[in-house]
Amino acid sequence: MPRSRVERHVDALFEWGIEVQSGDMVTIFASPPSQAFVNALHAKLGRIGAEPVTITGRPSSNIGVAGEHIAAFLANYDGTPTTPDHLQALVEASDAFIVIGGATNMHSTGRVPRATQQQRGKAMGPIMDTMMGSEQAVLVVHPTDAYAQHAGMSLPEFEDFVYQTSLRDWAAQNTRQERMRERLAAAEEARIVGPDTDLTLSLAGMCAINDIGDLNFPPGEVYTAPVLDSVNGVISFDKPTMMRGSEVEDIHLSIEDGTVRGFSARRNEAALKSVLETDAGSERIGEFGIGMNDAIDRVTGHISFDEKMGGTIHLALGRAYAKTVGAGREQNQSAVHIDLIKGMGESRLELDDDVVQENGEFVVE
Amino acid sequence: MPRSRVERHVDALFEWGIEVQSGDMVTIFASPPSQAFVNALHAKLGRIGAEPVTITGRPSSNIGVAGEHIAAFLANYDGTPTTPDHLQALVEASDAFIVIGGATNMHSTGRVPRATQQQRGKAMGPIMDTMMGSEQAVLVVHPTDAYAQHAGMSLPEFEDFVYQTSLRDWAAQNTRQERMRERLAAAEEARIVGPDTDLTLSLAGMCAINDIGDLNFPPGEVYTAPVLDSVNGVISFDKPTMMRGSEVEDIHLSIEDGTVRGFSARRNEAALKSVLETDAGSERIGEFGIGMNDAIDRVTGHISFDEKMGGTIHLALGRAYAKTVGAGREQNQSAVHIDLIKGMGESRLELDDDVVQENGEFVVE
Repeated sequence: MPRSRVERHVDALFEWGIEVQSGDMVTIFASPPSQAFVNALHAKLGRIGAEPVTITGRPSSNIGVAGEHIAAFLANYDGTPTTPDHLQALVEASDAFIVIGGATNMHSTGRVPRATQQQRGKAMGPIMDTMMGSEQAVLVVHPTDAYAQHAGMSLPEFEDFVYQTSLRDWAAQNTRQERMRERLAAAEEARIVGPDTDLTLSLAGMCAINDIGDLNFPPGEVYTAPVLDSVNGVISFDKPTMMRGSEVEDIHLSIEDGTVRGFSARRNEAALKSVLETDAGSERIGEFGIGMNDAIDRVTGHISFDEKMGGTIHLALGRAYAKTVGAGREQNQSAVHIDLIKGMGESRLELDDDVVQENGEFVVE
Repeated sequence: MPRSRVERHVDALFEWGIEVQSGDMVTIFASPPSQAFVNALHAKLGRIGAEPVTITGRPSSNIGVAGEHIAAFLANYDGTPTTPDHLQALVEASDAFIVIGGATNMHSTGRVPRATQQQRGKAMGPIMDTMMGSEQAVLVVHPTDAYAQHAGMSLPEFEDFVYQTSLRDWAAQNTRQERMRERLAAAEEARIVGPDTDLTLSLAGMCAINDIGDLNFPPGEVYTAPVLDSVNGVISFDKPTMMRGSEVEDIHLSIEDGTVRGFSARRNEAALKSVLETDAGSERIGEFGIGMNDAIDRVTGHISFDEKMGGTIHLALGRAYAKTVGAGREQNQSAVHIDLIKGMGESRLELDDDVVQENGEFVVE
């Protein structure tokens, strides 16, 4: 029997995103609209001989995607949410984690006070830390109506989009990304030049990572962190980004010695301001990434896709990934990590004065 | 705003079925079709300030109701299922358990080999033991299409049935049942007389229990266990019972000194035979119960309702509940506990020669 797209999605996840052995204890987080993926995943785990337990909802500190029941819980909670010790016990006894992004409604937490959301986020911290500290933890997106609607597509259109971007020749993509990773790892300095944009960043002594499914799925970016004080210049981001539940458009930043000194946005500038004011690290740059998944050809409002869009680069405000920070270099610390995405259609990326990307096309390849 | 039936169902569960305190760790088992109940339950737990974790599916050793993903897992499992240690860790760290019966399909395990089902049942044993050993563990039924179809009703009809049988004046019912419990506790001997039926059982030294939501919801029975070797005579059961996935009809048993010596059934007799041959305890009687929930006026094929039907009694083949067995009396042990239900419309129940129920009506009240 030919395998369905959902089954092939699960196969690809296990080939490129996560490694599970017979006897492993696997914890899955999923919402009801992703039941088809959950079923295919269980069939796979049966064949492997690993033991699954599926939690309804998401453990995220971003409770907007936690699920409608968690929203109902928090909307009625009159106090300070605590860490669920029994969930912590489950997570500590687990070998692998699969989080299935399959939202019912992107705004399910509309009635939850912001303070309760923040407290819940903190209470889930130890659980998130245990999961993120595992070698085997991956987020995968299953197409649901909520995501489709948010992306401005019908469900069949969004399904096509998810499978076209997730079911690819990952071996070939891996080779292609590895060449870019080597180029990025060797570079001393990057420069981004284009309309309202001229920004330089030092990459000296930092580590470049080839993302081929290590954190989320589909894969498709190469990323590093800039030397913290080295970022200088101005940059415009033409792709929208969700911040604090609002879509922020046409962001422009002016950066001096690694710190944002000026900012503007055409829409929802207040949300950008709120993010920048979170803490000391939130107005500094924690990541520089290059999107290389060419099947991602449009913005969906879901960062798992948007940050990997072909012909784009992104900078993240906030926390740097530890593995991108070289020995002796400072890792940017912050409660936030928010990617800002720039299409390179009219811009160019230079590494040590060599143009590697111009008008959205890679020159080095 | 007037509360919905689902919300009142949750309220009744917390008033009569389970006690949860602020700070308690609550583990919920639920399937996707019961999301409305899960949401209302989470709102309630938010108000209480207890921490919920919801597992998709059921932990039951009866995997027919475990959920379609568990069926997919087991249908592909080529080996001996093991106890999910991470689920065990969660359950051991929990203070209360709410299992929501909300099946998607009553035959979801159609493709799972019987041997795998049995092994899975054994592997779940320690988890079931931990849950059943808790003072705060309850099973509640949410109306789904699968249950409705199985009961021969539309979903709206079955919803009416569930709420009519679950949203009652439980204080009055409690008083009524307590009178019957006292009557049963004081009795030395019970006799059931009717068409093809004349059975005596000694209740001397056994304990009678007033079920007002201690194990499952809706409540509505008073039950005890017979002295193990004291059951003698013949009895016919006119209500069908699900056994090993088959509906067994018109069961007739001949019992000598507590052991079934002869049996027949008009339909699916082989399933009855298979149950009786399970082990030494499966051909002995572990429970004698009286159904007193008069809103349950028909067979649904769901034992949580059927065993409490007004105007019925039931005997269980197999394991006796520890709390029904008096000091110094033997508790029947078995891997099975299967209730056989008899309508009393043309029969009578005597306790120590007093007629307490005749033609389906209670005489003592």
